[in-house]
Amino acid sequence: MRSADPTIPVLDLSASSTDLTRQLCDIESVSGNEKTATDAIEASLAGLDHLELFRNGDALVARTNLGRDRRVVIAGHIDTVPLNNNLPTRYESIDGRDYLWGRGTVDMKAGVAVQLKLAAELTAPIVDVTWIWYDHEEVSESLNGLGRLAREHPELLEGDFAILGEPTNAQIEGGCNGNLRAEVRTFGLRAHSARAWVGRNAIHDAAPIFMALAAYVPREVEVEGLVYREGLNAVGVTGGIAGNVIPDECMVHVNYRFAPSRSGAQAEAHVREIFDGFEVTIVDLAEGATPGLTDPLAQHFLEAVGGEAKPKYGWTDVARFSALGMPAVNYGPGDPLKAHADDERVALDQIEDCERGLRAWLAGS
Amino acid sequence: MRSADPTIPVLDLSASSTDLTRQLCDIESVSGNEKTATDAIEASLAGLDHLELFRNGDALVARTNLGRDRRVVIAGHIDTVPLNNNLPTRYESIDGRDYLWGRGTVDMKAGVAVQLKLAAELTAPIVDVTWIWYDHEEVSESLNGLGRLAREHPELLEGDFAILGEPTNAQIEGGCNGNLRAEVRTFGLRAHSARAWVGRNAIHDAAPIFMALAAYVPREVEVEGLVYREGLNAVGVTGGIAGNVIPDECMVHVNYRFAPSRSGAQAEAHVREIFDGFEVTIVDLAEGATPGLTDPLAQHFLEAVGGEAKPKYGWTDVARFSALGMPAVNYGPGDPLKAHADDERVALDQIEDCERGLRAWLAGS
Repeated sequence: MRSADPTIPVLDLSASSTDLTRQLCDIESVSGNEKTATDAIEASLAGLDHLELFRNGDALVARTNLGRDRRVVIAGHIDTVPLNNNLPTRYESIDGRDYLWGRGTVDMKAGVAVQLKLAAELTAPIVDVTWIWYDHEEVSESLNGLGRLAREHPELLEGDFAILGEPTNAQIEGGCNGNLRAEVRTFGLRAHSARAWVGRNAIHDAAPIFMALAAYVPREVEVEGLVYREGLNAVGVTGGIAGNVIPDECMVHVNYRFAPSRSGAQAEAHVREIFDGFEVTIVDLAEGATPGLTDPLAQHFLEAVGGEAKPKYGWTDVARFSALGMPAVNYGPGDPLKAHADDERVALDQIEDCERGLRAWLAGS
Repeated sequence: MRSADPTIPVLDLSASSTDLTRQLCDIESVSGNEKTATDAIEASLAGLDHLELFRNGDALVARTNLGRDRRVVIAGHIDTVPLNNNLPTRYESIDGRDYLWGRGTVDMKAGVAVQLKLAAELTAPIVDVTWIWYDHEEVSESLNGLGRLAREHPELLEGDFAILGEPTNAQIEGGCNGNLRAEVRTFGLRAHSARAWVGRNAIHDAAPIFMALAAYVPREVEVEGLVYREGLNAVGVTGGIAGNVIPDECMVHVNYRFAPSRSGAQAEAHVREIFDGFEVTIVDLAEGATPGLTDPLAQHFLEAVGGEAKPKYGWTDVARFSALGMPAVNYGPGDPLKAHADDERVALDQIEDCERGLRAWLAGS
């Protein structure tokens, strides 16, 4: 059953997952503008008896209620970063491989398309499934639609295992590193640079901060069989008032990516220890997520999909499931290095692989 | 003879030099807006037989032509930095000392007032005098009125000795340090900070630049009996694209103040040697000026004014005279630390001291 509202685009879920990706991408849904896309998804599922729908803002939850022993949550965000003359999408072929080019193809409407097609078609999966499509992933943490659902309706996120459809080149990437950002500051005394000895140069005083960063050797930490690479980096530095003034403040913006075996509190303590003696302000702190691949459900999923699981280095929303005590992995079509790129494009074979992998597992075939 | 043009303010040169300072300050003349002040100065001198006037833009030259053996150039700028609710001026008394408060009182209309009063009153000085009041000192080098005169009418700047009325607390400050600014850069490779090992961090690579600055011991150099203190400082630093991106460029803005015994080319070579291996771009280079206090004219001036000469650390327009082969000193009322300050104010006794010192010397009394 399709909506009769002529302002809502009609999605054809019987099309291939690559074609459905294109349909979804061509509904522009830059963060904050997801309503039309969510309306279209909701309308496309509205007549299906095996799904219970729940709308929250521009997030949509579709649940099976088959009384299975276990429940899996499969989620994806429907917003994209801003366009840069890369819509509408187009098909293209590079070195004999077929791609869909355009904003959102990688991050992450190909993943959403696979999920949406399987949600409609798999009327009797071997586990109960909670499908979630949500808004505002690409912007401020406080706006994140999955975070909002977790706060307002935590019962809708309950399950035994979670899969996030973020791009992973169609491979399973377990858990994710944690992410901390800190501002490390020095303070001096302003003076005219012709009489520098009257003041104290805050940029010179910051030299040990840069030395510590340059000398830092990041850890490689094995967690549940996956090796997570850490990183400690200056991602910005500011200081200076004018070309003839001794600066009285210097700020080094530091980003620490830490293995999921380390808690946020431990990560903060580590950063404070490295920059001991300097003012350290934590401006962002997100816990990592352990891969959870020891769970039988995850093992079964691994077998169905094939290939070898890898660690996820970037922080993703899997950490929200981890925080709820659920093992969670990333699995979706597209090369993460093409996410947000002006030439964002997804290989069609990866879309088909993900559809095949998820379908095989959920159908128990 | 005063101008009949009612749009030109009338300056009363028979008033005291402190009162004349106030008259001049209350004609707002932020750089680029000097015309009214220059018009008023020109009109106030227009009827005097002993002065030959020459106008160039908003600079005014007034010369005696008495056939003296030696000629002295005495100069001051009439522009100020922008206001900050500090006009009109007012008299105030702090701890029993009398001040004139307001924009331009120190930098440098008190000096201009002393010069202007003496230009009018000293009809037969013991040396020929070229009085110069000029525009655009507080802004870009390319706009500087004294520089423009030096380019377009170098014959008007000719003389045996020069005095610049910049604030020196009514003491003689000889010559000035040179001034160099350079941008020192590192380049890396941009990458997502979750996979830092794919990139190269330009801020980390800049650590040796900060170490070199922190470890640098500036020289103290004696030139003609005056000890010039040098300085090498970071006056700014920039780097960084976003909180999750490994930065591919870092720029440290460096300011080198060098003793007048070192040429600009030598200063540049010194900076390039210190930052060997990094990209160094010289963005500003102004030669210093030797004090020239060995000249008999300067010695005579020193005796008339009294006190001991000091080195000038900041760069001033005396370097333009030095570049023309003329010894030059700074001598003017006001504390240079109050220049550009929101509470800019000049001690009245310093204005009177400067008037007395210059008058005694020029009148040969």
